[in-house]
Amino acid sequence: MTGVNGDLTRLSLNQETIKQWSLPELAEGCVKAGVPGVGLWRAPVQEYGVEAAARLIRHAGLTVTSLCRGGFFTAIDPAERAAALADNRAAIDEAATLGTDTLILVSGGLPPGSRDLFAARERIADALAELAPYAADRGVRLAIEPLHPMYASDRCVVSTLAQALDLAERFPAEQVGVVVDTYHLWWDDTVSTQITRAGAGGRLASFQLADWITPLPEGVLLGRGQLGEGSVDFRWFRERVDATGFTGPIEVEIFNPALWARDGAEVLAEVADRYRTLVL
Amino acid sequence: MTGVNGDLTRLSLNQETIKQWSLPELAEGCVKAGVPGVGLWRAPVQEYGVEAAARLIRHAGLTVTSLCRGGFFTAIDPAERAAALADNRAAIDEAATLGTDTLILVSGGLPPGSRDLFAARERIADALAELAPYAADRGVRLAIEPLHPMYASDRCVVSTLAQALDLAERFPAEQVGVVVDTYHLWWDDTVSTQITRAGAGGRLASFQLADWITPLPEGVLLGRGQLGEGSVDFRWFRERVDATGFTGPIEVEIFNPALWARDGAEVLAEVADRYRTLVL
Repeated sequence: MTGVNGDLTRLSLNQETIKQWSLPELAEGCVKAGVPGVGLWRAPVQEYGVEAAARLIRHAGLTVTSLCRGGFFTAIDPAERAAALADNRAAIDEAATLGTDTLILVSGGLPPGSRDLFAARERIADALAELAPYAADRGVRLAIEPLHPMYASDRCVVSTLAQALDLAERFPAEQVGVVVDTYHLWWDDTVSTQITRAGAGGRLASFQLADWITPLPEGVLLGRGQLGEGSVDFRWFRERVDATGFTGPIEVEIFNPALWARDGAEVLAEVADRYRTLVL
Repeated sequence: MTGVNGDLTRLSLNQETIKQWSLPELAEGCVKAGVPGVGLWRAPVQEYGVEAAARLIRHAGLTVTSLCRGGFFTAIDPAERAAALADNRAAIDEAATLGTDTLILVSGGLPPGSRDLFAARERIADALAELAPYAADRGVRLAIEPLHPMYASDRCVVSTLAQALDLAERFPAEQVGVVVDTYHLWWDDTVSTQITRAGAGGRLASFQLADWITPLPEGVLLGRGQLGEGSVDFRWFRERVDATGFTGPIEVEIFNPALWARDGAEVLAEVADRYRTLVL
């Protein structure tokens, strides 16, 4: 279907978007809908079995475009840091088994009682230095995801694409890249410049879509919008990403209980439709 | 008390922090606590009567450090825009009557159906061009407040201090300044540079404090923390602001129902205590 206007060649469904689906339902649903890629999460993959999940997706003819997620690198306590590094090595192994070259990183927030964002970001760099070669040896690239600033204290002190690139650029481009997720970055007037910077440096590891809708729910985790329901200009983003020469997958990752309460196939058809009309 | 370590000379209480207080209670409470400044809001001032409020605060010997708020400049509809400009002229008149030189602006979010942040920011500039001379004639400076990016769609498309300065710098410094509010800006690794820029240009119109705490409540409006309860390093901010030569008021503005449920004098004593130990 490559090159056909309105095709789904680059579309990937992140499994959290339709988390009511089991992995076999996900594989079958994507094949039926003509969606060639899936983004996976560690917990459901581990529950199903990593090898078995890899076989399932491969036999369905689908591509695993990313694995979510490694990260949480900001602990100060040495035992906690060692545990985080070990867990990230396991995540890298899982990514390799699944055949994806991209491990998404949610880098971690401020440790309890700490107010030092700068030091937290340096601890992320330290962890990347330990993990990046290990990942590269297994054909996996670490992808730093800047999260919306509203997550800075409890999830990720990397809040902008510029910060993510500042970190990534300390390492070889084939080892550490960045994620452009519209939900996190749509508000930033420097994002176009930073997308260009990411593309020029070969750092663009993943492109994810969700819409920004309000009011935000308590805890602000599960309030992402279906494409077209909110404030994001998806075509604007896609054109800027493509202008860098990026031809990789475009992954739809929406966390919203309203989508989880619906029929999965219906949600995926809606995603594909919005993708065709709003993204391409 | 000027110059005495631990003094409250620069402290201002934004009235929303203790909104359970009437204006007379606010005036009396601040005098008793030795807090010399108050930040006021239009609605309670209008309810009390603008002239009467001005007299009350003046007779108490207090300074009105700011009036909240003008703004909401992003409407496209000509009638809505005209109404917003008229309302802002009224806000400027009220600020002048109250004897404050600072009108805080919450610039406005995206109009319904719009996804164009750039155009919205240009409409803010257009409104500033109309209002700034009117305000200057009345001794009032417009103070653009960058709001946290989580408010970009529905309250304020100006999300960073850099954006606020980009807008302000199109106008004379004595007409348009910016607000540094720790709640909105604490996460930004460019904020120190931008505070320096603001100070160098004479743009620093207001310095406000609230702490960042999680989980955020539904709607994310009323989840600000008492100083010391969250992630903000207040001394770091105050030192950077002071390093620019700023000697103006330091206003505590916290929106939190837990504070509103308590005895106002107790809350103010706590604010003053936290101010002494965490800010000075």
